[in-house]
Amino acid sequence: MSALEQMATTTQDTALYCEIQNFYGRQMRLLDSAAVEDWAATFTEDGVFAANGHPQPHQGRDAIERGARQAASALAAQGVQRRHWLGMLDMAQNADGTVSARTYALIIETPQGGQSHVQLSCTCDDLLVREAGRLLVRHRQVQRDDLPRS
Amino acid sequence: MSALEQMATTTQDTALYCEIQNFYGRQMRLLDSAAVEDWAATFTEDGVFAANGHPQPHQGRDAIERGARQAASALAAQGVQRRHWLGMLDMAQNADGTVSARTYALIIETPQGGQSHVQLSCTCDDLLVREAGRLLVRHRQVQRDDLPRS
Amino acid sequence: MSALEQMATTTQDTALYCEIQNFYGRQMRLLDSAAVEDWAATFTEDGVFAANGHPQPHQGRDAIERGARQAASALAAQGVQRRHWLGMLDMAQNADGTVSARTYALIIETPQGGQSHVQLSCTCDDLLVREAGRLLVRHRQVQRDDLPRS
Repeated sequence: MSALEQMATTTQDTALYCEIQNFYGRQMRLLDSAAVEDWAATFTEDGVFAANGHPQPHQGRDAIERGARQAASALAAQGVQRRHWLGMLDMAQNADGTVSARTYALIIETPQGGQSHVQLSCTCDDLLVREAGRLLVRHRQVQRDDLPRS
Repeated sequence: MSALEQMATTTQDTALYCEIQNFYGRQMRLLDSAAVEDWAATFTEDGVFAANGHPQPHQGRDAIERGARQAASALAAQGVQRRHWLGMLDMAQNADGTVSARTYALIIETPQGGQSHVQLSCTCDDLLVREAGRLLVRHRQVQRDDLPRS
Repeated sequence: MSALEQMATTTQDTALYCEIQNFYGRQMRLLDSAAVEDWAATFTEDGVFAANGHPQPHQGRDAIERGARQAASALAAQGVQRRHWLGMLDMAQNADGTVSARTYALIIETPQGGQSHVQLSCTCDDLLVREAGRLLVRHRQVQRDDLPRS
């Protein structure tokens, strides 16, 4: 049996793994550049963004966009550039066609003229779906490592 | 042939590259969630974990599990969440069927209720093998950047 | 067609995505290990390295090598190990055969015997080309997050 035949990873898995990585690369840039409407459009219309740092989940694109706009305004007022890194992707394809994508998340903050630092370390558990050929987040659960898990 | 001419271009290389990334995503989560038995099972039965920060290498799954259990207990006692990030993967398939996988490693620590920070920056050089279809670490050499290389 | 509809899904895209990640893994190791001639060889002969932290771009391999040698000497004199992480890759294949590769960049510094920390957070926008089968950087624009964008 050749090495290729022994591989657990199919061509489809491989393509999806890279597609998710590229999706995150694009998605988090939208957030970090305050393109909040485009950011919200990476969630399904009824998408949910839940976090143990939020009093309640943001439900639906409008709420997700409002939340991002508020955060972006606060950062702009402080002159702080955020960078969201998602990494250490562990993905699983579910029987119903959805994809579970678990990542570690780092938020790096840099004040204008100041020193960069790790602001937050989190985990990010996504449920991804495909609509009209595009990956979208249907449900995101972010857990900050400094707070009790929700 | 230079290192650059050995770049990952075949379908098999591509699948393996993603498989290793996903393997690390899964493997380091096991360690970070203190699933130390499952963590040890990601090494071969006679696997070696060597580090310039350890007085001597951990040899075999039992020793690797004991080392991880000790570290996990200490972190739990301190209320600290660790996250191991492996990135910047550079892989090479060896003639004997093994795979050399070099990564950079960051250890991010977050105390409960406190500030996240970079605890350690390291390199991680793995020799990976496939057993019963699964990737396993046969030999891992971690080098902390703050200590002399072993 | 929205940006999200242009996602990497073909086998060729997938292979290229992994090849770029592996290229960066190799390339930045060369810089971080002070292999400055090999580092310069990952740029085209007329390659440009521009940065908002540099008074002017480095033009051509010789200038890129000189710049890297100077930086490496300063770090060695200070006993500091740098690690360049490129992540969150967002790639796009251009009609002329070149590839646009956008990444986030973290520079982690560790003094010998001291504490690791995030030194800089940046974005890195590359124009990649293939010469004799190898990926090379034709143009790199680095933007430090703490300085005004150039």
